[in-house]
Amino acid sequence: MADATGGVGQAQEARSRMARPLTDPEVRELIDGNFIAVLATVGDGQPYAIPFIYGYEEGAFYAVLSPGRKVRNLETNSRVCVTIVQTWDMGKRWRSVLATGSASWIQDEEQLGPALEAIKRQYPGIPVRSTGGTAALKGYYMLRVDVEEMTGRGHD
Amino acid sequence: MADATGGVGQAQEARSRMARPLTDPEVRELIDGNFIAVLATVGDGQPYAIPFIYGYEEGAFYAVLSPGRKVRNLETNSRVCVTIVQTWDMGKRWRSVLATGSASWIQDEEQLGPALEAIKRQYPGIPVRSTGGTAALKGYYMLRVDVEEMTGRGHD
Repeated sequence: MADATGGVGQAQEARSRMARPLTDPEVRELIDGNFIAVLATVGDGQPYAIPFIYGYEEGAFYAVLSPGRKVRNLETNSRVCVTIVQTWDMGKRWRSVLATGSASWIQDEEQLGPALEAIKRQYPGIPVRSTGGTAALKGYYMLRVDVEEMTGRGHD
Repeated sequence: MADATGGVGQAQEARSRMARPLTDPEVRELIDGNFIAVLATVGDGQPYAIPFIYGYEEGAFYAVLSPGRKVRNLETNSRVCVTIVQTWDMGKRWRSVLATGSASWIQDEEQLGPALEAIKRQYPGIPVRSTGGTAALKGYYMLRVDVEEMTGRGHD
């Protein structure tokens, strides 16, 4: 990862130098090959970041959120950051995707089905029916994150 | 994870119901057994969350950060959230730790060595020498996050 002859700055510099931007296909591959990301929100200046199971489709992430602090944060500040990290070889190789964007709730029956399908496609382990419409959410929230900027970095 | 007979709200509710708080030893085990976390910062109301290699010792996380947006964010708002996630069995079992706290830079020679040791203990793959003092940081930053609140959740 970095040679052992330098001090901490040199070692960190070597690590940063070896990292590179991911190509668009590599970004998409990382999104497609994972299903857990971290969703960072903010409330009163305090960041708050939770793991979540995502779906992705054409520039938007989707998730079913239970009520709580992240939902309260989003109701006053819709800005979010979605972070996906994958490592190999005990962290010697890694790739990450970082997307910033704006969150909204899906309340339109027409949009709920495709959002659920995106999540199920990402992670077939979620046994949710896409029938029942928004009433089926029963107090839960279907999040949509419109991605405005997305970058990837990695070290092979 | 959840039975397939309900709608999305029921499925999500079942997932949430099956999650439980982690005990203090389980929280510590998750911290000790990983070395990558996500550090969420905020700037101008926009959360920004990056993966990082951490060390942990007595209520504080440590990391060597390269210059950039997260450092600029921290210089105007020191509030952070550290999130660690581990999954097993294709995500059917998972545990996560979420810590909020305050960030500062280590600039004291006396504190730099123990911080580096904490990182090396967590992840021996980082070949940094703890000699050379703060001059060895060479423009990089040694972050200290004093944890104020830390919770764990999991589903076995």
